[in-house]
Amino acid sequence: MKNQLGREIPEAIAKNRLLYAGAFGTEPTMRRYAPQVKRILPGQSKLVDNIEDVFKKIPVKSGMTLSFHHHLRNGDGVLNMVLDTAARLGIKDLKIAASSIFPVHAPLIEHIKNGVVTELDTNYMSGVVAQAISHGILAKPVTMRTHGGRARAIECGQLKIDVAFVAAPAADDYGNINGTQGLAACGSLGYAIPDAEYAEHVVAITDHLEEYPLTPVSIEQTRVDYVVKVDSIGDPKGIVSGTTKITKDPVGLRIAENAAKTIEAAGLIRDGFSFQTGAGGASLAAAYFVRQMMEKKGVTGSFALGGITGYMVEMLESGLFKKLLDVQGFDLEAGRSIAKNPNHMEISANFYASAFNSGSAVNRLDAVILGATEIDTDFNVNVVTGSDGVIMGGSGGHSDAAAGAKVTIIVSNLLRGRLPIIVDHVLTATTPGETVDVVVTERGIAVNPLRPELKEQLLQAGLPVREIHELKELAEKMAGVPKQIETGDRVVAVVEYRDGTVIDTVRQVKD
Amino acid sequence: MKNQLGREIPEAIAKNRLLYAGAFGTEPTMRRYAPQVKRILPGQSKLVDNIEDVFKKIPVKSGMTLSFHHHLRNGDGVLNMVLDTAARLGIKDLKIAASSIFPVHAPLIEHIKNGVVTELDTNYMSGVVAQAISHGILAKPVTMRTHGGRARAIECGQLKIDVAFVAAPAADDYGNINGTQGLAACGSLGYAIPDAEYAEHVVAITDHLEEYPLTPVSIEQTRVDYVVKVDSIGDPKGIVSGTTKITKDPVGLRIAENAAKTIEAAGLIRDGFSFQTGAGGASLAAAYFVRQMMEKKGVTGSFALGGITGYMVEMLESGLFKKLLDVQGFDLEAGRSIAKNPNHMEISANFYASAFNSGSAVNRLDAVILGATEIDTDFNVNVVTGSDGVIMGGSGGHSDAAAGAKVTIIVSNLLRGRLPIIVDHVLTATTPGETVDVVVTERGIAVNPLRPELKEQLLQAGLPVREIHELKELAEKMAGVPKQIETGDRVVAVVEYRDGTVIDTVRQVKD
Repeated sequence: MKNQLGREIPEAIAKNRLLYAGAFGTEPTMRRYAPQVKRILPGQSKLVDNIEDVFKKIPVKSGMTLSFHHHLRNGDGVLNMVLDTAARLGIKDLKIAASSIFPVHAPLIEHIKNGVVTELDTNYMSGVVAQAISHGILAKPVTMRTHGGRARAIECGQLKIDVAFVAAPAADDYGNINGTQGLAACGSLGYAIPDAEYAEHVVAITDHLEEYPLTPVSIEQTRVDYVVKVDSIGDPKGIVSGTTKITKDPVGLRIAENAAKTIEAAGLIRDGFSFQTGAGGASLAAAYFVRQMMEKKGVTGSFALGGITGYMVEMLESGLFKKLLDVQGFDLEAGRSIAKNPNHMEISANFYASAFNSGSAVNRLDAVILGATEIDTDFNVNVVTGSDGVIMGGSGGHSDAAAGAKVTIIVSNLLRGRLPIIVDHVLTATTPGETVDVVVTERGIAVNPLRPELKEQLLQAGLPVREIHELKELAEKMAGVPKQIETGDRVVAVVEYRDGTVIDTVRQVKD
Repeated sequence: MKNQLGREIPEAIAKNRLLYAGAFGTEPTMRRYAPQVKRILPGQSKLVDNIEDVFKKIPVKSGMTLSFHHHLRNGDGVLNMVLDTAARLGIKDLKIAASSIFPVHAPLIEHIKNGVVTELDTNYMSGVVAQAISHGILAKPVTMRTHGGRARAIECGQLKIDVAFVAAPAADDYGNINGTQGLAACGSLGYAIPDAEYAEHVVAITDHLEEYPLTPVSIEQTRVDYVVKVDSIGDPKGIVSGTTKITKDPVGLRIAENAAKTIEAAGLIRDGFSFQTGAGGASLAAAYFVRQMMEKKGVTGSFALGGITGYMVEMLESGLFKKLLDVQGFDLEAGRSIAKNPNHMEISANFYASAFNSGSAVNRLDAVILGATEIDTDFNVNVVTGSDGVIMGGSGGHSDAAAGAKVTIIVSNLLRGRLPIIVDHVLTATTPGETVDVVVTERGIAVNPLRPELKEQLLQAGLPVREIHELKELAEKMAGVPKQIETGDRVVAVVEYRDGTVIDTVRQVKD
């Protein structure tokens, strides 16, 4: 069956799921998920000696869904610790719902091979686990969601969690948790908040027990059943994402400058401006140019949103933005700022980006700058698979911010490695073209034909506007027409759009 | 039918409800309430011109349940405003779930007479509405809950709210709400939080619109559907509760001092001490003596809980308590402190006192000092009806704190007016005797026989311990045996214990 983007979704996948029907084409029809009500008597303790004992108390059984959050990123120690316990206890057939999976989670591969883990649900994966998945290590396809989509799926009962294991940089003995204190302080715990709210059981794993009552509280005692003190929940150095420095590449800088000029041409660099960008070098460079414009015009922005970097903290502290809404800290400066600055607010994944609530923050974005591994001439974007067809990322907040923002800008070099990035059809559609307004490359800017008024603004600003087909041909002239990637038939991942519909699938790569 | 306290519950009331079966005798068996999932598209506005338009948009219909919170106390303007609108639009048969009802809500009486309101659900009521209820103005009995019980009933789906109207001292145009900014700043919005989380529709009524995104946020945009700007949500002067000064009455001071000495004798005046007391003169006097002891011993307490007064703020600022957990500000100092001091934390009614979650704060209390209108020789306490049988209050957090605290102390003069306060059977059982440890009067201290070790501690500390029967006889010698109040048969209120069971009923008074 084909979905609205023309993507072929195999019958077996389609039969139990809704297919993508446009960025706003699917409305919620369900009630929120309703976990069992619990109680705890005065005097009863939540402290448990170790993870094994928690497994026995709950009890964790084969076939359950265990959830994890990724604020410790590539420094996370909790997922491995918990799965090692499961393996030791002979538990099998677990579904792991981890908001993201990083190279540090390599031991997952062994657990998959041994049948401890038989299903994955995640918003992003990189490194050896993603590679193994692409090569077909798991019998069932992975469900890949957006950050907002995961929060929605949890709240709407589509992702049911038996036990949420919360890596807690700080906790008290009654389960109050925050991410701003302790040795592994990571700042916001935004992605863990839906898990704690809707899981049937919630366990705080911490290496830093504070006196009761811990303040501030990101996850409340009312939802946490057990507290386990361990030696270390992870390596705080792993929190910092790959690149958090502005690119020095002159081509990258030109693209970034044109992205900023696009925002300016759209009339958005004005008081009240709201903005999201990533932590990569090109995104930060774009933020640099946006900042110059704001300073030059004396503009005070409203808020910056999403994963927060030290660069955004600087802009807050310089008065360029009044508020930061932070679902995840990308570096230690973000963590330090959220701990002390009341204008730097922690938000949940639900608040950040869910499509199905009474209003998430992405809906209030003026502009977002995003990356891509491929873009097609319908402006559909791939951020899941690389040029070899192997999974190397995931939407994260990509589709969410694109759907919400007034202007969504994809920045990319025309070639990646030696391959054209603009193609007729992306291998994996992650973010639908109708939510993408502009593609900025070093050889020109393509505007989505759905936005003629924006194209007019860019032309009037003297920006190098090109048709997307022109850009594609330009790239093909330089590097030749790329060969179609050949994949196997087997579906290794189902890519869910933020509303829970199937936007695409990922097929096994050929060895 | 009789419940476990021996209270006669009429068949008509008993048949659809669980009866009280001991303070911890009823376990939760349900799932949480699950409201319908909603969505709002980017660009869609939540601002509505006036309350009438909100009524039409939702739409509010006859027979619905509308909820209100009482942080503006006797200064609240929102409940009256909303019900006037309902009356104007010809809406009938509304159930009003207001966390408390004050004299300012007198217009409710007209709305009851006219059939606009036919059912009430509240934790506390005083003034003319309470009097009218006692005289039988409503055909259906009022449900009277505890503060924790209301949060529980909302979360467990026993109190289903169609529309929550949140009096919002500050809001932005996307529905983020706090209680610390604006002209009617009242501090914590703790009692409104469960309503906003579980109501089918949520409306913010505000007189102070801030730029988006408002911070801090007590109630999030993800739950608020409409925002209405009005001229005034109420009179901030009405926030201050009746008495917030330490009593000067020498008898009251003696009782307060003995209450403090009871806590000391129980060994609780030590580092980590946690405490709750009310805003009345006697409660504040007890806090004064506790404070002296803490200062003398150089003790640093852990937290003070509940409704917060300026006196508790002083203790926080002097370092006598490390934290305040605030569900409601009793005066403007509390509001000022919560706005600026990160150790003064807003908590929801659920966090404060629900019996059915993974742990509320009352469970962590060392000592609580509470009042009474009557106490019986089984230590059951009445805080609902006065000596004439008329409703003049309600549990509020009384039963919740009593159930949670290690030591629950009731302070009272032996006589109220000219009537003995200790009786064989309280007219209305509000808080069960098994959760009450000590009754402190000016003529002696009675210890619950369930707590022999505590009695021993008090005796060893040289405190004037008496049997409760002795105290009763002493009072009767002074004032005579009080006449049994004669009530009618008709039930005007059902008193629910914090776990949702029926602990007692209130009968119509005889005119």
